[in-house]
Amino acid sequence: MTGSLTVAGLGPGDEALVTPEVSAALAAATDILGYGPYVARVAPREGLTLHPSDNRMEVQRASEALRLASEGREVVVVSSGDPGVFGMAAAVFEALERAPQWQTLPIRVLPGVTAMLAAAARAGAPLGHDFCAVNLSDNLKPWPLIEKRLRLAAEADFAIAMYNPRSASRPEGFGRALAALKEAGCGERLVTFARAVSAPEERIETVRLNDATPDMADMRTLVIVGNSQSRRVGRWVYAPRQAR
Amino acid sequence: MTGSLTVAGLGPGDEALVTPEVSAALAAATDILGYGPYVARVAPREGLTLHPSDNRMEVQRASEALRLASEGREVVVVSSGDPGVFGMAAAVFEALERAPQWQTLPIRVLPGVTAMLAAAARAGAPLGHDFCAVNLSDNLKPWPLIEKRLRLAAEADFAIAMYNPRSASRPEGFGRALAALKEAGCGERLVTFARAVSAPEERIETVRLNDATPDMADMRTLVIVGNSQSRRVGRWVYAPRQAR
Repeated sequence: MTGSLTVAGLGPGDEALVTPEVSAALAAATDILGYGPYVARVAPREGLTLHPSDNRMEVQRASEALRLASEGREVVVVSSGDPGVFGMAAAVFEALERAPQWQTLPIRVLPGVTAMLAAAARAGAPLGHDFCAVNLSDNLKPWPLIEKRLRLAAEADFAIAMYNPRSASRPEGFGRALAALKEAGCGERLVTFARAVSAPEERIETVRLNDATPDMADMRTLVIVGNSQSRRVGRWVYAPRQAR
Repeated sequence: MTGSLTVAGLGPGDEALVTPEVSAALAAATDILGYGPYVARVAPREGLTLHPSDNRMEVQRASEALRLASEGREVVVVSSGDPGVFGMAAAVFEALERAPQWQTLPIRVLPGVTAMLAAAARAGAPLGHDFCAVNLSDNLKPWPLIEKRLRLAAEADFAIAMYNPRSASRPEGFGRALAALKEAGCGERLVTFARAVSAPEERIETVRLNDATPDMADMRTLVIVGNSQSRRVGRWVYAPRQAR
């Protein structure tokens, strides 16, 4: 009996943003693995085993998922948003690289609505022109590389979606990111703070970067820095399609 | 009677990638506007008027949608993928900027699975680390700006998702983009060509950038250039989460 491994994105929070493809995979699963709060979004049922685990356990979790699949289970590893954007997909392939015996298992990655798309939709169209996505967590990369990327992104005039801007264990980084962007000449750009997008406690706020302070973001906030052309129309923010 | 305007993303093609939120909006609509091939994805029914229009008519289409909403219609403007990523959302806000009398209309943007997420999922996890999205169409921006962004993205070591790499009216651009990336030292990077993702005729191919040729992309192809760390594991391509 051959099992399978599916890596699925649950979207930003609202069930109405879970794709039918992902819902079908969850309905067919025997085992769900993931970070606790994400596994908690899957309803328990007869025949389904939930395996919540801690944050920063990504590769161990991925290895366990591969092992279960190799034993014939129908395994789904869940991420919030899209699993390919700072989610579990890369961790699964990292685990697979270490364990070549599992490379013939049926593996699928199912995309989802990543946080920056949901946040942008609520704000208007701040990603309507070229843009980049930068993970501000320095767990897996040195801080100077993050600053370098922000400076180059500013020079390229990308809108910049910043994931994981701030956490209890990294309170300083986001302030340094804002300072780096000011230094790079982005002070007048519009910055949107999108907290808990699509959840009941959602809050969206847009200010000039010069007026942004580090405490405006927390672990559940997605930050979008507009490009140099971004502007307001009514209550919306958008990046014009035309650029010079 | 007040109507409403909804800008909705239909995802890359497969109905299983349309969010329930978007399906509900389509079911409640009286009028659907969009580029012909996207409007054709919505099933006709009693009480629903379909308004297909040509490509490059984005702002006219958006103005017409606003006018219909102001007359009390429940209007949905459709994009493929996500409407905020090189889709109709920015065009709607552009039209709204020109017609302030409509700024009090109820407007919603509904996110969708954009092509790069679906393409990345099929290939593995090439966007698993920081990345950017660049529209290679020079209809709305000068070509030198595109090349500048590609060079800076290479220097930042972003993975690069390239939308609209090639069309009949712009056969030359994609070759120049590949040349610029080679010059920027990206020759050894893995490049994934994802054509017609999630449609029956889908085709995914990964080669080294040095071996990529312009004819490997067409209008329906999404191209993802990996970062310097991207590698293969089995039949997959992924960007490791760790960076130096």
